[in-house]
Amino acid sequence: MTSAPDSDTIFMRQAIGLASQAWGQTHPNPLVGALIVEGTEVVAEGWHKGAGQPHAEVEAFAALGRAPAEGAVLYVTLEPCSTVGRTGACTNAIIDCGIRKVVVGAVDPNPAHSGRGLQILREAGVEVEQGILEDECNDLNLIFNHWITNGTPLLAAKMAMTLDGKFAAASGHSQWVTNEAAREDVMRWRRYFPAIAVGANTILKDDPSLTSRLGSEVFCPTRFVFDRHLKTLSAPALPKLYSDEFKKNTVILCLENAKADLVEKALGCGVGVWMLPEDDGHIDWSVFRARCAEAGICGVYIEAGPTLATEVIEAAKVDYLFIYKAAKFLSDAAASGIGSNRQTVKMTEAFELADVQHAIFGSDVLTRGRLLK
Amino acid sequence: MTSAPDSDTIFMRQAIGLASQAWGQTHPNPLVGALIVEGTEVVAEGWHKGAGQPHAEVEAFAALGRAPAEGAVLYVTLEPCSTVGRTGACTNAIIDCGIRKVVVGAVDPNPAHSGRGLQILREAGVEVEQGILEDECNDLNLIFNHWITNGTPLLAAKMAMTLDGKFAAASGHSQWVTNEAAREDVMRWRRYFPAIAVGANTILKDDPSLTSRLGSEVFCPTRFVFDRHLKTLSAPALPKLYSDEFKKNTVILCLENAKADLVEKALGCGVGVWMLPEDDGHIDWSVFRARCAEAGICGVYIEAGPTLATEVIEAAKVDYLFIYKAAKFLSDAAASGIGSNRQTVKMTEAFELADVQHAIFGSDVLTRGRLLK
Repeated sequence: MTSAPDSDTIFMRQAIGLASQAWGQTHPNPLVGALIVEGTEVVAEGWHKGAGQPHAEVEAFAALGRAPAEGAVLYVTLEPCSTVGRTGACTNAIIDCGIRKVVVGAVDPNPAHSGRGLQILREAGVEVEQGILEDECNDLNLIFNHWITNGTPLLAAKMAMTLDGKFAAASGHSQWVTNEAAREDVMRWRRYFPAIAVGANTILKDDPSLTSRLGSEVFCPTRFVFDRHLKTLSAPALPKLYSDEFKKNTVILCLENAKADLVEKALGCGVGVWMLPEDDGHIDWSVFRARCAEAGICGVYIEAGPTLATEVIEAAKVDYLFIYKAAKFLSDAAASGIGSNRQTVKMTEAFELADVQHAIFGSDVLTRGRLLK
Repeated sequence: MTSAPDSDTIFMRQAIGLASQAWGQTHPNPLVGALIVEGTEVVAEGWHKGAGQPHAEVEAFAALGRAPAEGAVLYVTLEPCSTVGRTGACTNAIIDCGIRKVVVGAVDPNPAHSGRGLQILREAGVEVEQGILEDECNDLNLIFNHWITNGTPLLAAKMAMTLDGKFAAASGHSQWVTNEAAREDVMRWRRYFPAIAVGANTILKDDPSLTSRLGSEVFCPTRFVFDRHLKTLSAPALPKLYSDEFKKNTVILCLENAKADLVEKALGCGVGVWMLPEDDGHIDWSVFRARCAEAGICGVYIEAGPTLATEVIEAAKVDYLFIYKAAKFLSDAAASGIGSNRQTVKMTEAFELADVQHAIFGSDVLTRGRLLK
């Protein structure tokens, strides 16, 4: 039997829940939750609601609306900031309000600041505990952690497969590989990322809307279409992405030598076009990364079919993978899966994931993690 | 946050833990655990230790060694038996000892008895609650439930794959696909089944011992080798299975027309030989099933490579699948996976699992379930 969680764990898990209320809404800032406990009672809650808005700790202090009682403890999922940005330094706010104990989940992933907030608090005589549910607190901020450390967007590929690694029947039919709960989870991740990307073939085959539909909320991220030669614009009917109410969120990625009349047609629809250089027969992903960074797009969720998945895994073009597995086998050698003709000799040649997390959706399971490079 | 479990759930989970102490040792009987609670205290524990031994409830009464106090409750993972077999009916023992409340996990899966024990108790004025952790209690007895319902062994295939469904590198190298924790779990399931089976190619390639090594315990199940033409006996050296200290537990499965001199050689080694009819180029599995049943072998754990896995899935020759998935991709079209040339048109043609359970081993995951037929 597992033992009951201690109170630090319970309160930190509540703080994670608070942070998640702004799921996908804080870019390029992190998700952060905070709460103030007096005795055994949560007396105030706060979370960061978006860039330019107050930090979670400050929200919690505002919610309390008075000085904390003696012995009050602040729980916060991320190390309090020690720099004055668009908002004041949280370390100052904590010290000023007189709170004497802070429990922290994850340390600041920014190597320039990591641990400094904790040190400032300790030097001011505040008792600091760190590392409570650290992995979960870090996992809240997959995008922020990557962006702040590398200065480039987190490129993540999502794929849905059978247990034998098939994306579709031999005919191409793929609705559906995974169950409803797993597909709802995809909506949740679409809401997390500021941008989504698909290949031209997906547009031509499925004509998706690529919005996140969660309950009554419809969210439309930046929608990238990988379409080197703009073949989606030669189709008889305009795809939804180029004509719906969110079309200004659509950006087509094509090669610099794409046909001028098709580029004109795209721009005429009101969608964006990024003309990118070629690299070994593909769009140059390093330039794509840089363009995203310039545009302030800190994360892209790429819905990959088998061809794109093979490309991004073997060339390590993405940083992160989401793999949904349905509890079924197609057992059909002609059905599409991942793989080129690498002629592997040892199992150690496999491409591995790190920091792996699993989530179970009835019979289906999501495995996700960083792609080791 | 999940709410704390109620006391029925806590005690039933303890009873499941007790049942598991006889893991793999009760065939053809089920694993059953029981405990007696007075107030909030567990005052006696019992579990079924093996065929011919007392049932779990009787063990608990014996451990108590006195009449239960007023208000005492018996928790038991499986519906008490109402028939007099090698041991007396547990329903009588319960009524006689004066206990007035019984909490039951799973009902008896035997359609001839299911619910009868509960009814007898209720008619005698005993309060009965049923269905506490029912799925987990049923899951304890995968083999027993199948055997008692169908009268045939539970045939289960185990496979280990990468996320893209590969069993080995293109060269055939496969050590290791999964991590150490997942491989330890295989040892646990080998201990659960009274018999294990592999193909001749596995014997020739890996020369395994097919024992279950858990801590200091070495357990050797009945070891079946699928070897239609007895090619393992033509190998230059005798495989371990035919020469080690457990060789009397080895049974080679060959065709009725296998060469007489090789059959002689096998028998000369001291291993068993079952000569079985052919069915569509393979050993006839329905005859294999019947022979197992005659021999009292109620479950077989088949360690399947990609060829055998394809065969047993497509022809539904097995009842249950264990699929270990490592968090890696080989991304090599030449590496072996599952599949024939079925030319599937719809995703609904996939072979699905039911009653799916997942277990997480660090980065790896086990998906297991009944193969729908």
